[in-house]
Amino acid sequence: MKAIVLEKDHDLRIRDIDIPGDETLGADDVRIDIHTVGVCGSDVHFYLHGSLGPFEVKEPLILGHEASGTVSEVGSAVTNLAVGDRVCMEPGIPDPNSKATRLGMYNLDPAVKFWATPPYHGCLRPSLVHPAVFTFKLPDNVSFGEGALVEPLAVGMHAAGKARIKPGDIALVLGAGTIGLMTAISALAGGCSRVIITDVLQPKLDLAASLGAVTAVNLNTTDVADVVNDLTDGWGADIVFEATGKDAVAASVFDHLCPGGCVVFIGCPGGSVPLEIVKAQTKEARMETIFRYAHVYPRCLAMMGAGKIDLKPFISKSFPFDDGVDAFDYHVEGREETVKVQIVVAD
Amino acid sequence: MKAIVLEKDHDLRIRDIDIPGDETLGADDVRIDIHTVGVCGSDVHFYLHGSLGPFEVKEPLILGHEASGTVSEVGSAVTNLAVGDRVCMEPGIPDPNSKATRLGMYNLDPAVKFWATPPYHGCLRPSLVHPAVFTFKLPDNVSFGEGALVEPLAVGMHAAGKARIKPGDIALVLGAGTIGLMTAISALAGGCSRVIITDVLQPKLDLAASLGAVTAVNLNTTDVADVVNDLTDGWGADIVFEATGKDAVAASVFDHLCPGGCVVFIGCPGGSVPLEIVKAQTKEARMETIFRYAHVYPRCLAMMGAGKIDLKPFISKSFPFDDGVDAFDYHVEGREETVKVQIVVAD
Amino acid sequence: MKAIVLEKDHDLRIRDIDIPGDETLGADDVRIDIHTVGVCGSDVHFYLHGSLGPFEVKEPLILGHEASGTVSEVGSAVTNLAVGDRVCMEPGIPDPNSKATRLGMYNLDPAVKFWATPPYHGCLRPSLVHPAVFTFKLPDNVSFGEGALVEPLAVGMHAAGKARIKPGDIALVLGAGTIGLMTAISALAGGCSRVIITDVLQPKLDLAASLGAVTAVNLNTTDVADVVNDLTDGWGADIVFEATGKDAVAASVFDHLCPGGCVVFIGCPGGSVPLEIVKAQTKEARMETIFRYAHVYPRCLAMMGAGKIDLKPFISKSFPFDDGVDAFDYHVEGREETVKVQIVVAD
Amino acid sequence: MKAIVLEKDHDLRIRDIDIPGDETLGADDVRIDIHTVGVCGSDVHFYLHGSLGPFEVKEPLILGHEASGTVSEVGSAVTNLAVGDRVCMEPGIPDPNSKATRLGMYNLDPAVKFWATPPYHGCLRPSLVHPAVFTFKLPDNVSFGEGALVEPLAVGMHAAGKARIKPGDIALVLGAGTIGLMTAISALAGGCSRVIITDVLQPKLDLAASLGAVTAVNLNTTDVADVVNDLTDGWGADIVFEATGKDAVAASVFDHLCPGGCVVFIGCPGGSVPLEIVKAQTKEARMETIFRYAHVYPRCLAMMGAGKIDLKPFISKSFPFDDGVDAFDYHVEGREETVKVQIVVAD
Repeated sequence: MKAIVLEKDHDLRIRDIDIPGDETLGADDVRIDIHTVGVCGSDVHFYLHGSLGPFEVKEPLILGHEASGTVSEVGSAVTNLAVGDRVCMEPGIPDPNSKATRLGMYNLDPAVKFWATPPYHGCLRPSLVHPAVFTFKLPDNVSFGEGALVEPLAVGMHAAGKARIKPGDIALVLGAGTIGLMTAISALAGGCSRVIITDVLQPKLDLAASLGAVTAVNLNTTDVADVVNDLTDGWGADIVFEATGKDAVAASVFDHLCPGGCVVFIGCPGGSVPLEIVKAQTKEARMETIFRYAHVYPRCLAMMGAGKIDLKPFISKSFPFDDGVDAFDYHVEGREETVKVQIVVAD
Repeated sequence: MKAIVLEKDHDLRIRDIDIPGDETLGADDVRIDIHTVGVCGSDVHFYLHGSLGPFEVKEPLILGHEASGTVSEVGSAVTNLAVGDRVCMEPGIPDPNSKATRLGMYNLDPAVKFWATPPYHGCLRPSLVHPAVFTFKLPDNVSFGEGALVEPLAVGMHAAGKARIKPGDIALVLGAGTIGLMTAISALAGGCSRVIITDVLQPKLDLAASLGAVTAVNLNTTDVADVVNDLTDGWGADIVFEATGKDAVAASVFDHLCPGGCVVFIGCPGGSVPLEIVKAQTKEARMETIFRYAHVYPRCLAMMGAGKIDLKPFISKSFPFDDGVDAFDYHVEGREETVKVQIVVAD
Repeated sequence: MKAIVLEKDHDLRIRDIDIPGDETLGADDVRIDIHTVGVCGSDVHFYLHGSLGPFEVKEPLILGHEASGTVSEVGSAVTNLAVGDRVCMEPGIPDPNSKATRLGMYNLDPAVKFWATPPYHGCLRPSLVHPAVFTFKLPDNVSFGEGALVEPLAVGMHAAGKARIKPGDIALVLGAGTIGLMTAISALAGGCSRVIITDVLQPKLDLAASLGAVTAVNLNTTDVADVVNDLTDGWGADIVFEATGKDAVAASVFDHLCPGGCVVFIGCPGGSVPLEIVKAQTKEARMETIFRYAHVYPRCLAMMGAGKIDLKPFISKSFPFDDGVDAFDYHVEGREETVKVQIVVAD
Repeated sequence: MKAIVLEKDHDLRIRDIDIPGDETLGADDVRIDIHTVGVCGSDVHFYLHGSLGPFEVKEPLILGHEASGTVSEVGSAVTNLAVGDRVCMEPGIPDPNSKATRLGMYNLDPAVKFWATPPYHGCLRPSLVHPAVFTFKLPDNVSFGEGALVEPLAVGMHAAGKARIKPGDIALVLGAGTIGLMTAISALAGGCSRVIITDVLQPKLDLAASLGAVTAVNLNTTDVADVVNDLTDGWGADIVFEATGKDAVAASVFDHLCPGGCVVFIGCPGGSVPLEIVKAQTKEARMETIFRYAHVYPRCLAMMGAGKIDLKPFISKSFPFDDGVDAFDYHVEGREETVKVQIVVAD
């Protein structure tokens, strides 16, 4: 099977690879022909460094975990899917018997097998076998490219769920990168009346400003305090989503929060974040943290099927499978206007 | 002062009326020149029957409780409003010292003074004095007519809040009357991916179907079970909003609810509702009930200001103040396409 | 294998029965030697009527679902249990792949296999095989008799969880039967400051009154309204637990509830319950319903291990296995002071 | 009026002081003869430093904010209290018209007038006037000394409420000072099955260990990780209450927390706390913060009246009013076994 394989840092190739056991289709599994795969920052991190946090690439590893495709075979016990269904997949497979999974928090199961995280191969390959319960049909109005974007959207949607938005809340999203943008549209579709989003890259802010009731603030030119005060009559934002992962930004989350408000930490800061707990206390701030997502793929797809969320504006560029390594390099170049780069494995 | 006064059932007049004490502007009050007032079913009920539930019209009573207007005078301690501000007002004034009010549930204070509920006069008059904290500025893009519609919208928004919508939930709204429609748009703006709404009046359903991700079901021609099953893969609706107030409909709320789902009783049934508790138990249904609303006017106005909710389609017909009694009679005629009739007190 | 087998209504025998497949111990299973089994009202209902709701006894059925015992063998993948562990077991085994189970609501999985519910055999037999994840170690201070009482306690604990008790809440429990008593101690241990419990059987009330901060009200002699008003300064109970399953009682749940309060329907009324929705609305009552329990066995055992809940007072009488049919007849006699009758399968 | 007055740091005197306007009893007020007042760390901080955070003592200030007493006069609109009632009082009086107050979060109102916080006098004086709604009757079984301890208990009870304890949760309380102890008993009475509490002062731990299902851990001799693992089967504590206010301890809150668990920051760290957000994310930790308390005095008193909480063990030493300055010095000496020092103003 031809796949996009990381040998070690900076050594990414399209080549044949043997995946033992990949032929076995369990009763609760489906086989999927992969169509489109998005390139994620974590894939690129492996590409550049050969590792990510505690995970090190010691054996050749197929990259990719944002995928859509078509069902080509269904296990004997599968009832919710049929051959020919257009689908997208959750890239993490938890142990159904773990305590976290049974409690409904399968994303917190430490035994989860996550695509493109050693030792588990990713999805940049022609086909794979996956549990049916983590495989979801795409609505007719959702393309394969959009389907492959459900994975990052799920992060934003999970964050929006954790915030427990009350209808009409005003949210502040710190950071207009891919996850910040996904969070902004999730918060808007998920019940906020308005989203204020901050960044220093104007192309990202221009895109954000085109997404509906979004006030995009360039921190180089505008004081976000004025914007928040103006839009909330001095009360503060109901919710602050931290989506930069930068220590200094994460340390500022209480500045524009309203009394009784909620902070959601989405970004992953590199070190410890110096939080002013006393400042949080005077507002009785609630803080939530998220780890990937759980139970939100169907919610994302329902939003997209209903037209409440449109992911097309976020697909910046697509590469054919044979130019897959170029897709990674293009991502590395980091154009300001780039949101998501995708690879079309097979049309 | 000229007002629209109910003498007794079927005897509604525009006439001068003396309102003692109405001249006094407290430090925390504002005086408002009334612009537009909506006619509500409860006003009409008083008009036709001279009473509503336990409330009986024994003295001449000014009707009307859905109002917008312009601030003409502000009390000495008022800081959030200025003369000339375009505003709408909550019609209920609670006792700030009551236990319910202090707990944040001022709508449940039994001592609340509610407009057009004996012995408290309503707002179909040129001006009145109101607490500043229950008076809210209209966004620039919101007309006086829309401002006067915030009151029924608040009911829908409060119901949406009680449901604790999770982003992407699918809601079923039973009844496409004014409150059902307000609930549908609140649920959509408040985080649902889709609203299924049922009724037997096609003009109301046609209006509903034009409001976004709404599936309008005419019960005379379509089995709602099929629609819900189709849109939820047989799982059931996450939330069922009961907005008919009819006993038989209210008794059916568990039929299309998903496991772990939530029912919100908005409509006020005439009698006891025979609920199948065992059916609810097999789904561990949660049931919420609402009484008017609390803390949602700012949320409604934020949604309207941001363009997420547009109330213009619901203003069916406006009457000048001098034809105010005709407005009531027009409402009584009950055209199928009528949603809200309003009276322009003064332009 | 000798078991207590229901042939058909009124025909209960201790006899040998062959259970095909019962020998197989899966990797995630344990084998348990049964020690004590409680007799539940549902067992007795099968005994007297040969059916319960939609479930009909068509083949000989081993009764019993409230059990404790000792692990005699563990599957190869089991890590949390060892041979010799004293344990109690949840009697329902859900499908780990069902949507309800994955969402953390395994009790709502319609495919659950529940002991002593046709076609699944119960636990009145010397040994059985059970999934390790539904098998729980007894703390050292908990006897086998108390361990077999965890099952009904779990119902009360689940109800207490659904109520979302705030520390210091005052609860009203309607009905001092076994489930009402289990709910009372769960509510007390679970954060209520006081429980008011009502019934007409004085021996049950006397037992209730001995359990701590419990006010036991005999409805034949006392007006519960006076008691609630007195203990809540006229505000009403924060939570009302309905534990009679009687239609008329269930219809009264809003009478003594405070504004913003919560009702939990635990009992299973025979028919539809005529609920005064408008009365509920003036209090914005929240209503919760429960179906068995989920995730609460460890919570029950933690309470018992810590000495916060003591189940010894509820074990009314124990019978040896060979007199097991007498245990059922004793239960049927329905002495007013009887709470739980148990059968000691093997010491 | 003779009062305990702080002139400036280290200058505390019992002397006559004139309090203008103190004679006026409003319609919603009561006058209270003070009986007992507890000495709090914040009082002592003013005594030693003449300031606390942003609050500076510029004029002579009566200290004390933990008080009980007897109603001597009631305002014309007061219905819930009568002359002779034994009471305790919340020391903060918010603006009923502020947004925070109306939302039910009166503790977050920045305009709150809090006793013994400049420029507002405290309660170490023979009598004072107070709003009836913030004055609460003591149950018959609660002494004046215990009544004066409700204020610090309220902090623990508020923290327990914010944690949203599920019945049977296991909590870890960091710090066995007064607030840590109050939190431990609140968590236990409020639904936890067990509390693990840590400190390095053995007398405090010995007291804690006598309070019920409390496991007291001396960090000098025992590894709390072992204790938590043992008591939670390696899962972690459901709730971690931070009650030391020490930066290094506050930075450790995720170490022993379970997946999906909750941290409540009660203590007020001196500086920024370096939090490992990524560690929190892998557990999807929720963090809550508290500022004083709201709506919990009645809950505390209900717990005490029902016998679920007993504050007597925490009254370490009482001083007569004339030795009031000695009480402060005794507190400053900081004996390891001292929890609460009180001053009996008048018997």
